[in-house]
Amino acid sequence: MSVTAAKGFTAAGIAAGIKDNGNPDLALVVNTGPRLAAAGVFTSNRVKAAPVLWSEQVLRGGQVSAVVLNSGGANACTGPLGFQDTHATAEKTAEVLGHSAGEVAVCSTGLIGVRLPMDRLLPGIGKAAEALSPHGGDRAAIAIKTTDTVHKTAVAEGSSGWVVGGMAKGAGMLAPGLATMLVVLTTDADVDTPGLDAALREATRTTFDRIDSDGCMSTNDTVLLLASGASGVAPEAKEFAEAVRAVCDDLAQQLIRDAEGASKDIRIEVVNAAGEDDAVEVGRSIARNNLLKCAVHGEDPNWGRVLSAIGTTSAAFEPDRLNVAINGVWVCRDGSVGEDRELVDMRYREVRITADLAAGEKSAVIWTNDLTADYVHENSAYSS
Amino acid sequence: MSVTAAKGFTAAGIAAGIKDNGNPDLALVVNTGPRLAAAGVFTSNRVKAAPVLWSEQVLRGGQVSAVVLNSGGANACTGPLGFQDTHATAEKTAEVLGHSAGEVAVCSTGLIGVRLPMDRLLPGIGKAAEALSPHGGDRAAIAIKTTDTVHKTAVAEGSSGWVVGGMAKGAGMLAPGLATMLVVLTTDADVDTPGLDAALREATRTTFDRIDSDGCMSTNDTVLLLASGASGVAPEAKEFAEAVRAVCDDLAQQLIRDAEGASKDIRIEVVNAAGEDDAVEVGRSIARNNLLKCAVHGEDPNWGRVLSAIGTTSAAFEPDRLNVAINGVWVCRDGSVGEDRELVDMRYREVRITADLAAGEKSAVIWTNDLTADYVHENSAYSS
Repeated sequence: MSVTAAKGFTAAGIAAGIKDNGNPDLALVVNTGPRLAAAGVFTSNRVKAAPVLWSEQVLRGGQVSAVVLNSGGANACTGPLGFQDTHATAEKTAEVLGHSAGEVAVCSTGLIGVRLPMDRLLPGIGKAAEALSPHGGDRAAIAIKTTDTVHKTAVAEGSSGWVVGGMAKGAGMLAPGLATMLVVLTTDADVDTPGLDAALREATRTTFDRIDSDGCMSTNDTVLLLASGASGVAPEAKEFAEAVRAVCDDLAQQLIRDAEGASKDIRIEVVNAAGEDDAVEVGRSIARNNLLKCAVHGEDPNWGRVLSAIGTTSAAFEPDRLNVAINGVWVCRDGSVGEDRELVDMRYREVRITADLAAGEKSAVIWTNDLTADYVHENSAYSS
Repeated sequence: MSVTAAKGFTAAGIAAGIKDNGNPDLALVVNTGPRLAAAGVFTSNRVKAAPVLWSEQVLRGGQVSAVVLNSGGANACTGPLGFQDTHATAEKTAEVLGHSAGEVAVCSTGLIGVRLPMDRLLPGIGKAAEALSPHGGDRAAIAIKTTDTVHKTAVAEGSSGWVVGGMAKGAGMLAPGLATMLVVLTTDADVDTPGLDAALREATRTTFDRIDSDGCMSTNDTVLLLASGASGVAPEAKEFAEAVRAVCDDLAQQLIRDAEGASKDIRIEVVNAAGEDDAVEVGRSIARNNLLKCAVHGEDPNWGRVLSAIGTTSAAFEPDRLNVAINGVWVCRDGSVGEDRELVDMRYREVRITADLAAGEKSAVIWTNDLTADYVHENSAYSS
């Protein structure tokens, strides 16, 4: 269902020949209205890909009629010529659809530092437009995969005849701010641009911004939310925000579960922090500790590595009041040896680490993966 | 030669039975004077091991008569009882040598969160004292190894009959502030505590603080510099500082070359930065990028990952003015594609990455290693 679960949207996914292996590599998502409202959140990396620079401009207008997405090349670090390629992609899409280029968002994903094969991409846009369908959501989701092993879609239904649907890609370079991913969400709810923006920012803050597979922030991250208003229903802001959050959370979990080379999904919950910022800082520090990620891979409840990661942060805590549980066993109490580590069962894919800062009442959950030889293998051979 | 290259020092390294495998695990370094001046630099991790808390206190007095070091256990996150163990270690050393416990520094390295076997450690101190010798430096260096494959020593000679010598251990959990390592430096130069402190801080700032093998900061890092004054020569401050820096630099290089599982040593030079802090921040961000570290392992000159790492920093730069060279080939110019990446030869162990921020005149060098399946293997099985 994906981006076409909501009324007022068509989508397509085709093989334009951008990828050498002939797999689908070009997707179109078109808002057929009546509304064209949209909001977007982009990577906070200061080195931004051409499509991010372009789409940020487009989103400032608050209207998006179509999104064109390609895999097989990130069009990042490609200079002024790369930006011209993105511009030409938007122009071609607008021409084919009879829209304005200023309302066409562009997303790209793949290798950094390589120009896109425009001689194949531009003709592909015409082909994709011909394939547009109200049932094209899954094909669009498939066409944006890179190292993803599965395509990712999610849908949440409102109480009064509207839905939020979405698709995502991403499997590596996953880190807050945001993860290396492209996400397009659509809704047929009748919501204006400020309403979309508020719901999207709050949703990404506690979902995509809290998955950190490998600590590496991408140049291309983009999350778009498009509203067609085609249901004719204007939902209550709170219910709408919750539906957007639910879809983002579902997609974020799918990203973590498909992370490159991972064999474990690690849920890090920081509790009793003095503030939410402290909880997030501590959670990210634990999530980025390579030694801990290796230990989890080896099913070793090495809580000392959790404490040494906490110790590098500026969060409020006293070292001798810290407690750590791994899969429910409090292996560290008061900064020292707690329950018997032999009690910890780490055979299953999900591993839960709880870090109790004993400094307040705030909490946060950060998700990461283990570090494996497969991750090294996949990422030492990616561009070769 | 190690810590006994300087006159006025004796040392020993023995097997006390702390390690189950019977390898040497206890070292003693004794300053026989006439001076007992000393300076120390410790981990900036807020979770500090008991021996760090103890030795920080000792160093505040500015005098160290002996250092007792054990491998086979870090005595970190062991609570008040762990601190009592460190205290008892210093007391026993003082008793055996006829010194004051308040002048005995203690260093421990090994697994976090496990109490030391004091029933074997304390008798070992007597045995080590009996083995003290002006030729014991190498044996002491061997006894502090954990996952190190070789022991590490270095010596620099002054122009007028004094020397600085040292030993180091460390192979993982290597990151600035400081790396997971124990370092003892000795000199027979006649230098007082403030002189030692100034020379040591400046030396560690640009050596140990700029190696970042795996981004993980330890609970036990300690660098001590002891002066006996036995040469009777008071060197010029600048020459002395340079000798201390040279020994630190030599030992830091040995740590990087012996890093766990590494197949490449990566020298990251950030040039044309607006300030030294900017250069260091950018260098560390590159050094901690797992994707880049994997790419180097695969001998893939993936400069896009360098740019995406630079983009996460707050340093002054314009994305479209960044240049990156790998092994001398400027594969990225003006933030975009530069020379042919096929020209980059990455077959050798040392890989040089130059990041030109085009924003000023400052520079810094940070060293790291590649990320390998061997690193994952070694660190997923360490405590099991």
